[in-house]
Amino acid sequence: MDRINLSLADARALAVRALSANGCDQANAEAVADIMMVAERDICESHGLFRLPGYVTSLRNGKVDGKAAPVASLIAPSIVRVDGKGGFAPLAIATGMPDLIEQARTQGMAALALRNIYHFAALWPEIEMLTEASLVGMAFTAASPMVAPAGGTKPFFGTNPMAFGFPRDGAPPMVFDQASAAMARGDVMIHARDGHELPPGCGIDADGNPTTDPNKVLEGAQLPFGGYKGSGIAMMVELLTGGLMGDLFSYEAGEKDNADGGPPPGGELILAFDPARFGDADGWRAHAEGFFTELSSQDGVRLPGRRRHINRQKTPVDGIQVNRSLYETITELAG
Amino acid sequence: MDRINLSLADARALAVRALSANGCDQANAEAVADIMMVAERDICESHGLFRLPGYVTSLRNGKVDGKAAPVASLIAPSIVRVDGKGGFAPLAIATGMPDLIEQARTQGMAALALRNIYHFAALWPEIEMLTEASLVGMAFTAASPMVAPAGGTKPFFGTNPMAFGFPRDGAPPMVFDQASAAMARGDVMIHARDGHELPPGCGIDADGNPTTDPNKVLEGAQLPFGGYKGSGIAMMVELLTGGLMGDLFSYEAGEKDNADGGPPPGGELILAFDPARFGDADGWRAHAEGFFTELSSQDGVRLPGRRRHINRQKTPVDGIQVNRSLYETITELAG
Repeated sequence: MDRINLSLADARALAVRALSANGCDQANAEAVADIMMVAERDICESHGLFRLPGYVTSLRNGKVDGKAAPVASLIAPSIVRVDGKGGFAPLAIATGMPDLIEQARTQGMAALALRNIYHFAALWPEIEMLTEASLVGMAFTAASPMVAPAGGTKPFFGTNPMAFGFPRDGAPPMVFDQASAAMARGDVMIHARDGHELPPGCGIDADGNPTTDPNKVLEGAQLPFGGYKGSGIAMMVELLTGGLMGDLFSYEAGEKDNADGGPPPGGELILAFDPARFGDADGWRAHAEGFFTELSSQDGVRLPGRRRHINRQKTPVDGIQVNRSLYETITELAG
Repeated sequence: MDRINLSLADARALAVRALSANGCDQANAEAVADIMMVAERDICESHGLFRLPGYVTSLRNGKVDGKAAPVASLIAPSIVRVDGKGGFAPLAIATGMPDLIEQARTQGMAALALRNIYHFAALWPEIEMLTEASLVGMAFTAASPMVAPAGGTKPFFGTNPMAFGFPRDGAPPMVFDQASAAMARGDVMIHARDGHELPPGCGIDADGNPTTDPNKVLEGAQLPFGGYKGSGIAMMVELLTGGLMGDLFSYEAGEKDNADGGPPPGGELILAFDPARFGDADGWRAHAEGFFTELSSQDGVRLPGRRRHINRQKTPVDGIQVNRSLYETITELAG
């Protein structure tokens, strides 16, 4: 593929220019650019600059307010709420994160309830903000009906990712970030684009029949991973973000969204737990390292998140590879 | 099968007698009997009186202290810790639950960290204690290595169940309680006993090869549900109960346990969230009911926990059916 090499600093500056030229104020432009840059840095291309045209689309058609100023408030001793004011998630997350960390340390555990936001990124960046603060983190977000519940045939759940992270001693944190769909939406679309069949179990056609044709799945519905158990996880994600926090369920997000290909509306719940308060303040790190050592001692076992951290060592030196046509699109958007 | 009919009251009295005759004090005998009775009431036979001989085995060989007096303490504003003092889980849960509910309401969310216990029951009974208090609940417990991590070939994780519940308005709560193994351990054993093949994907033999022979899986390892994503959930359960709370990881529980077939050692984490504090205090119930109505409107979709609640209407009238040989065993244990 035709690619050009950019330094992370140049890529960030380009992203900030493109967002600023299309309605973001400086704070939002930098927060959104930064969330794309942590993905580019780790060579997670699908959550990097690849997302920029979608962000711009939603700015241009007015769905998302690029000048939103999120407001954080402590609505209970262990609950920080951020009203994102209809803006992108990154500034809302940055606004609430210091309070979440502080409350988790003083209360033992705390939640960040992000409402009225548009989330278009992975969940692991916010999880890593917690692991860097020596906290255990979980995050959940739901949006855009694409996945049929177990037993059903119509899209109802979002791909509803759930992420979890645990801090490590002298090693990158253990972080996973997994859709409750059997396959991420973007991967289904890439299979369709490239004319490849899907593995079995990823989706059904519009009549509810199993199919490995990605185009038929896009007209029908994706399936949860692991059958009814993955469907349970997808439902839990909805009930945490929609039911508990009072933001949109996926079916409501689907009714509200303009389907412009940009970020969908939908809340996010982030939980933070302080192992120094829960367990043995001096011994918890060594105890967990014993577990990771045992787990890694089995041939074939790979800890989630390792590859990203290996990539992260390289990109500050080597720069990143950006698809040329994407680069040209973004340069044009930057004016 | 040869069965006898018992009222719930008679079944409970028999269980209390058998536990008391083998070393339980009154408080522990009643708490353990009650946890078996909520299972019998809902016709979840595998977690009912079926467990009683296992409880007695661990009393007789001294693994579990039937007179343990659990101690609850508020170790942080949002963390209630119970030291189970080496006893069975039910009295420890009953000891900590009122404080958990109170802290969840005052803090917005709270955790109950149960350490130094032996858990031998389902997780949904404690989840229903929370939903009855109009709280959202999650629970996790890990014990006894039986499941190979994704990519690996040796037992390392427990079957590591995770449960979630959401209170409903004029309907039984939505509660799921699912092992992170593809199949519950008891079901694998029942397949072996009855000479039935397992469905594909449940386990591997001692050499790490996929097999549908339940005896070979029992010599080898079970597999997580849903591949590497279910393996991630299993790991998360371990890191919450072992890593965060400072109780045993499954591999440590395996080293400590005497493998007597009774309850294994291992901590439990229960989380409680107050939707009246998180979201719209007046509107959250109606909002969630809208979701349940939409979800249930798809043909073929069944909400988890419904069947138990249907059974629950019948057993107080009809009594329960107990396997005759189990009944005779328990009567003998009761002296």
